[in-house]
Amino acid sequence: MPEFTHFDAEGHAHMVDVSEKETTPRIAVAEGHVKMQRETLEMITEGRAKKGDVLGVARLAGIMGAKRTADLIPLCHPLPVTKVSVDLTPDPDLPGIRVEATVKTTGQTGVEMEALTAVTTACLTLYDMVKAAEKSMEIGAVRLKLKDGGKSGRYEAKR
Amino acid sequence: MPEFTHFDAEGHAHMVDVSEKETTPRIAVAEGHVKMQRETLEMITEGRAKKGDVLGVARLAGIMGAKRTADLIPLCHPLPVTKVSVDLTPDPDLPGIRVEATVKTTGQTGVEMEALTAVTTACLTLYDMVKAAEKSMEIGAVRLKLKDGGKSGRYEAKR
Amino acid sequence: MPEFTHFDAEGHAHMVDVSEKETTPRIAVAEGHVKMQRETLEMITEGRAKKGDVLGVARLAGIMGAKRTADLIPLCHPLPVTKVSVDLTPDPDLPGIRVEATVKTTGQTGVEMEALTAVTTACLTLYDMVKAAEKSMEIGAVRLKLKDGGKSGRYEAKR
Amino acid sequence: MPEFTHFDAEGHAHMVDVSEKETTPRIAVAEGHVKMQRETLEMITEGRAKKGDVLGVARLAGIMGAKRTADLIPLCHPLPVTKVSVDLTPDPDLPGIRVEATVKTTGQTGVEMEALTAVTTACLTLYDMVKAAEKSMEIGAVRLKLKDGGKSGRYEAKR
Amino acid sequence: MPEFTHFDAEGHAHMVDVSEKETTPRIAVAEGHVKMQRETLEMITEGRAKKGDVLGVARLAGIMGAKRTADLIPLCHPLPVTKVSVDLTPDPDLPGIRVEATVKTTGQTGVEMEALTAVTTACLTLYDMVKAAEKSMEIGAVRLKLKDGGKSGRYEAKR
Amino acid sequence: MPEFTHFDAEGHAHMVDVSEKETTPRIAVAEGHVKMQRETLEMITEGRAKKGDVLGVARLAGIMGAKRTADLIPLCHPLPVTKVSVDLTPDPDLPGIRVEATVKTTGQTGVEMEALTAVTTACLTLYDMVKAAEKSMEIGAVRLKLKDGGKSGRYEAKR
Repeated sequence: MPEFTHFDAEGHAHMVDVSEKETTPRIAVAEGHVKMQRETLEMITEGRAKKGDVLGVARLAGIMGAKRTADLIPLCHPLPVTKVSVDLTPDPDLPGIRVEATVKTTGQTGVEMEALTAVTTACLTLYDMVKAAEKSMEIGAVRLKLKDGGKSGRYEAKR
Repeated sequence: MPEFTHFDAEGHAHMVDVSEKETTPRIAVAEGHVKMQRETLEMITEGRAKKGDVLGVARLAGIMGAKRTADLIPLCHPLPVTKVSVDLTPDPDLPGIRVEATVKTTGQTGVEMEALTAVTTACLTLYDMVKAAEKSMEIGAVRLKLKDGGKSGRYEAKR
Repeated sequence: MPEFTHFDAEGHAHMVDVSEKETTPRIAVAEGHVKMQRETLEMITEGRAKKGDVLGVARLAGIMGAKRTADLIPLCHPLPVTKVSVDLTPDPDLPGIRVEATVKTTGQTGVEMEALTAVTTACLTLYDMVKAAEKSMEIGAVRLKLKDGGKSGRYEAKR
Repeated sequence: MPEFTHFDAEGHAHMVDVSEKETTPRIAVAEGHVKMQRETLEMITEGRAKKGDVLGVARLAGIMGAKRTADLIPLCHPLPVTKVSVDLTPDPDLPGIRVEATVKTTGQTGVEMEALTAVTTACLTLYDMVKAAEKSMEIGAVRLKLKDGGKSGRYEAKR
Repeated sequence: MPEFTHFDAEGHAHMVDVSEKETTPRIAVAEGHVKMQRETLEMITEGRAKKGDVLGVARLAGIMGAKRTADLIPLCHPLPVTKVSVDLTPDPDLPGIRVEATVKTTGQTGVEMEALTAVTTACLTLYDMVKAAEKSMEIGAVRLKLKDGGKSGRYEAKR
Repeated sequence: MPEFTHFDAEGHAHMVDVSEKETTPRIAVAEGHVKMQRETLEMITEGRAKKGDVLGVARLAGIMGAKRTADLIPLCHPLPVTKVSVDLTPDPDLPGIRVEATVKTTGQTGVEMEALTAVTTACLTLYDMVKAAEKSMEIGAVRLKLKDGGKSGRYEAKR
């Protein structure tokens, strides 16, 4: 049966010992979105050319957010990421912006949390930049899409 | 018509000048959730007594996350928050954990981003602590619930 | 005769006591540049449309850098800035990019260091993004252009 | 023809993938200076003994600045530096203080940005400590002097 | 009867609401020491002139540590300190180094934690710099010496 | 004769070059305590069940503090820790709380400072949470208990 590895036998939180785990290449992909009204989305996509690059700022914030992961998540191991990319795609059917982050490292633990933190930081930044136009935006569908490398092997989200 | 205040006339990103805004008491409440399988939720709620206080760790991470907001969101003004609380409530109907954060300050700008950052940081921490048991959890429904204080006045989310 | 205010009577470094200073509006403007070869500058200005917005990334880094000033400069007082803007202008005569940062606050000390830190951080980021094309770029002419507010009054750089 | 490696094919900023690069010993040396009036320089050099060790504080700030590089430069890879030294030398001919920083690591990317950040942080700290005496100081001639290790090989600045 | 203000009625940790508290001048003084062998102390006091200013480095670290307090202490309010000084005094009778930190602010909460954090950070830095010579040093007697300002009034440690 | 390795031949502080040191598994254990009145200790131990988990918050702060070590200690090498645990044990004979931290890494330098920083951060957090009940608490007996790995070999504190 699965256990909460972040607690010891007495139920005390700790940063799990990964000293004995192998140093291997690791990758994680996470995704999420910010849902908004159609008019808000149009402001962003048009503004890209004229009024300011909302997506460019959010992308950069997502990349920098990945580097702050171990500062934010208490029991997360610090590790030097070797690649971070964040894609933001307007989706008129949502309507809103879809966010996807890919993170790599060569280390003893995975980078799921770094990829998820990149996604939420990019989403928060989108919200911050657009909130003067719409306060009812919603961040959602944030999840791990893919993970590979390390002992537990490959994980791919369904659908 | 609303505008993206985070860009100047030439479309360049900047941190908006709030020097002339009044210093007033401000409050913001944000919410969100982490959706999971019923078994995972049961592990958390039972574990609270025996295996480790997952919710306590996530609550603390959320509070600390609020203090890192201006580090994470590029154009967000730094401001000294005067109150942060984060509530985590198991919801068997979701099933999952509902998160709500309340932040206050006395300042020249609002604390929406602080409240939203507290929510996403608590959700990410929940994910981190439980991911060994379930990787398919999803962070969602992150939105601003209430905002008050300052020139733009009170905002309350619908429903 | 002027003295080094950052040291006490025994020559020990300290963060100067500003408790008794008045809380007033303050502004500082700093400038600097990154000098490069003509071809490198052309890559940046053309690339803005096609290959990537080097100036946009440097601008954002400069703004965020201003918020980290008190973390970097040991004896600098932390203070919540109320406005930061960073302008980057290609100058074919340099040839290179000219950087100017404006910072405001309402507080007990000035924001010269915040403006200067915004400039150097933007310059370092320019260097980072362009270094694969040219390593011999040079950051220079970083200085305070204007300062106002507070007891010591207005300062304007010559020329 | 050289390209801006920090952007992908669509012109979007990303943190370059260095996963496949070899882990090798790396070194970088950067330099710069703070130019000031002769009287200001004399205050610093005399003060060293009596009024406070300006150079010692700036040196320490430079070393700590090197460790904050990946926090400041958006697309810079985090990496654990294995050596940082910062030398500050009064130069009556400038007149001013010359700064030189040496950084080493064993990793997959170079430490140029760490060395340059150490130099600018030391220069900013010098400015901060001496600004009560002279506001017209200028930070300049900040450049990479030497870089070695890694695929691109050795680089040495001219002169 | 005194209560733990950092927990709400349900026993959940929160950052206490100080919104309604008055903004007043506040001061706190904390002290502590690092105990070591007589030979180690002599190395430090002699070295000050010749081999390196151990006390100067520790002093600076203490001052910077005070600025990081709200990052380190989960439920501590962030606040802009207006003065920090750290004194380090060799005491041959200990034998060791005595550390005293004074912090001021004008705010809604006290600065006890900032003063205590300055002391422990200075002590840790002393340890770090001298540990090659002696590993058995001990940090002790860290306590609040004085606190004034705010509703709870003046506190002075006994003796 | 032992030397202060953190200074070069001229007495200037530097971050020691560890590039040539072997990458080996390293462990450090540090300890310390917070001394308080018997009634205060009882409030904590009883409160654990009803009024709030003081020890749980301090434990988490200690773990996160270990990750901030290189930010706080000027000449400390940054390194990715692979395990951190912090134990807090009420001791009625002290009376007070005993703290012990264990940190591991695989790297070129030891983790003594990380273990000691975990201890002091946990102690400071205990103080912060309980100070409304008692201001006269004292942090003491902070020392290195054990260190192993690396060229200098095993160290165990006496007693």
